[in-house]
Amino acid sequence: MIETLEGQFSGRLITATDDVAPFLTDWRKTWTGTAIGVAQPDSAEDVARVVRWCAAHRVAIVPQGGNTGQSGGSVPEATGTNLVLSLTRMNRIRAIDPANDTIAVDAGCVLQSVQAAADGVERYFPLSLGAEGSCTIGGNLATNAGGTAVLRYGNARDLCLGLEVVTAAGEIWDGMKALRKDNSGYDLRDLFIGSEGTLGVITGAVLKLFPKPAGRATAFAGVASVADAMAVFAEVRARAGARLTGFEMLSEACLSLVLDHVPGARRPLVAVAPWYVLIALSDSESEDTARAALEGALAGALAAGLLTDAAIAVSEAQARAFWMVRESVSPAQGAAGPAIKHDIAVPVSAIAAFVEDALAAAEAAFPGLRPVTFGHLGDGNLHFNFSPAPGMDRAAFLALQPALNAVVHAKVRAYRGTISAEHGLGVLRRDEAHAARSPVERALMASIKAAFDPQGIMNPAKLLG
Amino acid sequence: MIETLEGQFSGRLITATDDVAPFLTDWRKTWTGTAIGVAQPDSAEDVARVVRWCAAHRVAIVPQGGNTGQSGGSVPEATGTNLVLSLTRMNRIRAIDPANDTIAVDAGCVLQSVQAAADGVERYFPLSLGAEGSCTIGGNLATNAGGTAVLRYGNARDLCLGLEVVTAAGEIWDGMKALRKDNSGYDLRDLFIGSEGTLGVITGAVLKLFPKPAGRATAFAGVASVADAMAVFAEVRARAGARLTGFEMLSEACLSLVLDHVPGARRPLVAVAPWYVLIALSDSESEDTARAALEGALAGALAAGLLTDAAIAVSEAQARAFWMVRESVSPAQGAAGPAIKHDIAVPVSAIAAFVEDALAAAEAAFPGLRPVTFGHLGDGNLHFNFSPAPGMDRAAFLALQPALNAVVHAKVRAYRGTISAEHGLGVLRRDEAHAARSPVERALMASIKAAFDPQGIMNPAKLLG
Repeated sequence: MIETLEGQFSGRLITATDDVAPFLTDWRKTWTGTAIGVAQPDSAEDVARVVRWCAAHRVAIVPQGGNTGQSGGSVPEATGTNLVLSLTRMNRIRAIDPANDTIAVDAGCVLQSVQAAADGVERYFPLSLGAEGSCTIGGNLATNAGGTAVLRYGNARDLCLGLEVVTAAGEIWDGMKALRKDNSGYDLRDLFIGSEGTLGVITGAVLKLFPKPAGRATAFAGVASVADAMAVFAEVRARAGARLTGFEMLSEACLSLVLDHVPGARRPLVAVAPWYVLIALSDSESEDTARAALEGALAGALAAGLLTDAAIAVSEAQARAFWMVRESVSPAQGAAGPAIKHDIAVPVSAIAAFVEDALAAAEAAFPGLRPVTFGHLGDGNLHFNFSPAPGMDRAAFLALQPALNAVVHAKVRAYRGTISAEHGLGVLRRDEAHAARSPVERALMASIKAAFDPQGIMNPAKLLG
Repeated sequence: MIETLEGQFSGRLITATDDVAPFLTDWRKTWTGTAIGVAQPDSAEDVARVVRWCAAHRVAIVPQGGNTGQSGGSVPEATGTNLVLSLTRMNRIRAIDPANDTIAVDAGCVLQSVQAAADGVERYFPLSLGAEGSCTIGGNLATNAGGTAVLRYGNARDLCLGLEVVTAAGEIWDGMKALRKDNSGYDLRDLFIGSEGTLGVITGAVLKLFPKPAGRATAFAGVASVADAMAVFAEVRARAGARLTGFEMLSEACLSLVLDHVPGARRPLVAVAPWYVLIALSDSESEDTARAALEGALAGALAAGLLTDAAIAVSEAQARAFWMVRESVSPAQGAAGPAIKHDIAVPVSAIAAFVEDALAAAEAAFPGLRPVTFGHLGDGNLHFNFSPAPGMDRAAFLALQPALNAVVHAKVRAYRGTISAEHGLGVLRRDEAHAARSPVERALMASIKAAFDPQGIMNPAKLLG
């Protein structure tokens, strides 16, 4: 059957088992599926042809970008009936308009190449996350990716002005608007953003650009508790205002993992503290003003006894070293062994209480597990992960996942948080999210899915339960 | 029939003709409808009861806040079969969480009272527009209101984290989340925002708060052309970065209208110029730093010969006087006589060419009409209005509206803009927006309406064609 697709589009169609294999497993190697083939279209028209073929043959489509997702959203089912639609050949920068502060791109553009294109016209595209060298804009939008600059610039959703989407009927919706204001109908754009390919295939986007900051300043500081970290956050935010672009946190356990498993990693501060924060400011005037603003903010926190130790980076290399520590936590945990991960958010005002409460509940339920707690503190978003207790068997540890999820996520719900802050539901969080929804919300979401994808061919078994 | 509703909810039900009358006409007195009554619920549960009654009796519901809309979205049909659902009694601030920078409010809260509540805890709620003393948050969200701080803080959509909505089935959707990141399903929030009451009734919202700026600076400057105004914008934006909160423009014709019709209005600059810009900066440090940043930015523009004259406000009173001029344009045009209004946006990079082109096209089609061009230049959003030629008959002028709309909106489409930037479609722009949509977009929007409101009882004949 798949051969009837071959002649219909100008892209590439992969069907040989060995060639298909790399598209069937996610980068963490947590999920593996099967597929009748991988279509690699060159254009939105190409995508539309593939989708029409799939609709006619009732073949389910799994859109895939860089395949760097954390929740299994871009892995095909194990049914052998899915077609993987890989967007990576669609990687053109379509247009840059510096005077409008916008860039129009193919969905398959790698995030880093969008950042570079912006930089090339003296503009700044702020979306930034660990996988930026391989993840694609289409995937970033399909999962509404977060990252390290959300505090100042928002999530992927907030950085997108327009979209081009191929619908489940194989038609192209041209919503490639480059407007700051547009109230002319239902917000289709935001409905497709975060829908993880279950309502249509994002093929293009118009993204916001920003003035390039003239200077940055980065600090790494130790704090005695999460409550103190939050007090520092409040102080810095009040003083630095919109200059504050990032406020990250990691525990000493996270730092130890990085020191043990990442070549070249060094302890940023002499003094050991239970928790560390990484603070990033940027300024439109100069590096000096950015640095002065950060020094002023930290001086207040130091005077209030909130910091055990603090360093402001004196060079770009030192700033990069601070960030390297923060961004190495997840890879270091992976290198150390198996991990059970959570991607939670609670109101910022609740995060200190949540951490204390949820860590205690996890320890009570499963004594000895090693918490690996880090994340985007300023967004109320933590990667509330766990590694095995020393000496614990891998399989025994991984078997705890459902029960540990239940303990952690019950605390998340108690603080009116979310179990999926920035990674999306995919297959990993799908059923838990479904169970937690009210009947009203379930019905509304199901009605959207039925309206947009009546045949159920768009990334089935993802996102919705 | 209406009497069967009376006992079912704790709110107030108005049915006497004289008492109903004020709810039937919009503030501009452009549209008047009829209604079987006005329900004034006290709570979301109350709203749900009213909607269930309406669903059972197939009565159409017209949600109404401050009734300050510009597009007729909150006026009932003339069929005599609508029920007006006025949310103004639901005006409680539910909760303020300064540490989370959020406020939870009833939908009927007047915008100004939300601003005041934020101010009371040393926070800032940035949504600001002419009608802020009477418009409600529910209406602001239902129309995704813009206003004068969009450049820095975004539209109403960008300021909302959570919603409570009564669905067309009379059920309450509790989406009152106070989270900065949440990717746990389809984005129902943004679907309801901007849907003008056609998918459900917004009854509550969680809104973002911001640190209160420590200082502001405001300038009023003359420029020779819209192109020069845009060059000033580019200069100021590059230098001031996130400090830039507003960049407004008005023509000399607008200023003349204000001077003629607004008591106490004064010319802000000695020199007369064809166009003026109002520039607003805010800073997290102090008024001095805000002022220094504005002076620095304007010095560059002056040196480049972009400004004919400029004044930086030396007092809060002078800054208010600058803003008063800008905000008086619309009322002054109303006082002067009839107006044909447009609420357009184009890419910021296209606005100078658009203005020249569209003004020429309007003059060619209808010689002598008086352009009243002003708006939010930094957002690419202009109120591209017209007043009658001197001596022109009111009725003859207003009869030009469809043909003038066609001329202006054809230019908007040529520049890939929108005919509805911040006021919503209501009944005013409904048919034109429908005609301009692609069949794909029409089908997607219709499928959403059918999924959410299968009986078609939610604000019928608004937004969708």
